[in-house]
Amino acid sequence: MVKQERAVRTRKALIAAAAEVFSREGYRTSSLTVISRLAGVSSGALHFHFPTKSALALAVEEAAADRLRAIIERCEMFEQPQGPIQLVVDASYRVVEQLEGDSVLRAGFELGGHTEGLSSTGRVCDLWQGWVASALEQAHGDGRLRSEIAPGHVAAVVVAVTAGLEELGRRDSRWLSHPTLTSFWRLVLPQVAPAGAHLPL
Amino acid sequence: MVKQERAVRTRKALIAAAAEVFSREGYRTSSLTVISRLAGVSSGALHFHFPTKSALALAVEEAAADRLRAIIERCEMFEQPQGPIQLVVDASYRVVEQLEGDSVLRAGFELGGHTEGLSSTGRVCDLWQGWVASALEQAHGDGRLRSEIAPGHVAAVVVAVTAGLEELGRRDSRWLSHPTLTSFWRLVLPQVAPAGAHLPL
Repeated sequence: MVKQERAVRTRKALIAAAAEVFSREGYRTSSLTVISRLAGVSSGALHFHFPTKSALALAVEEAAADRLRAIIERCEMFEQPQGPIQLVVDASYRVVEQLEGDSVLRAGFELGGHTEGLSSTGRVCDLWQGWVASALEQAHGDGRLRSEIAPGHVAAVVVAVTAGLEELGRRDSRWLSHPTLTSFWRLVLPQVAPAGAHLPL
Repeated sequence: MVKQERAVRTRKALIAAAAEVFSREGYRTSSLTVISRLAGVSSGALHFHFPTKSALALAVEEAAADRLRAIIERCEMFEQPQGPIQLVVDASYRVVEQLEGDSVLRAGFELGGHTEGLSSTGRVCDLWQGWVASALEQAHGDGRLRSEIAPGHVAAVVVAVTAGLEELGRRDSRWLSHPTLTSFWRLVLPQVAPAGAHLPL
């Protein structure tokens, strides 16, 4: 393995271990020693890649944002006959599903604002909110969202539900199975879609 | 001050301090020394009232459940011409408002499941979900909730939104101001109320 590849692997292992430990112990209480041990990496190597715990947390947030972008891109690859609202619904299911097994994505939702130098809500939540809002704005422009509905307001509600399922799911993973998200969309979709629209559920 | 009164005060001060520290530092990382110092109480007095950190966390959860019950009771005291749906809407506003300044209530939402010996979702969330479900069941029985709507499903969605606003609000208190909750109810109410019902917003 060439040197650069090894560095990339070490970095990845550290980010995965940090996400795991942050998610289990909380950011403040997490120890860098525990993280480097879990990653199978020396303390010196950790400090070489991440001089501070907050640098490591930022890297976890970036990795979580990448996971979210990947989910969104996978959803966007498929033809969406129902347009952008369908896309938002699909992506919300993929996000909530992935929260169960993916400690990096989970840590991304949890870390926001707990680390220094971050925007107040955190990268992942901001990215999620921004993407949902812009998809719904597109639906609005296409006449697929009722004209009196504000895309940004719906996006905030979607982010609140996702964050709530993430928080509740940490304690009881049943919250991350589909029923509550389906109940949510069943209540919300008829309200946002123009009369006569086929609802993507 | 008689001895018993002093004991009640000490207990209260310890619960308030614990909620504050749990909420700021996280349950696992919180130190009993920091809590007793913040409460202005000796370490011995803390251990006299709460032999373990988990006993203290249980007391915080009970206190948070009492705060939630008080919010609900205050809402129930007023005549609700719109019936139980109005009651749920009003209580949701009071809960989200109180989350901003009340670290005991906030700690109750956060602690669930992080401490041992608790139901998986935690007392406050369970209590909130149970009460919302039973109010909506009553609305269902009175014909004030559309017959095809399952009260338990709506209750789970309300709990997810509340938990999400609590989590997001920890980082950015703007989430605890009204707009997102109002957007949520504006989307959900027309869907749950029978045609022609006056919506309590």
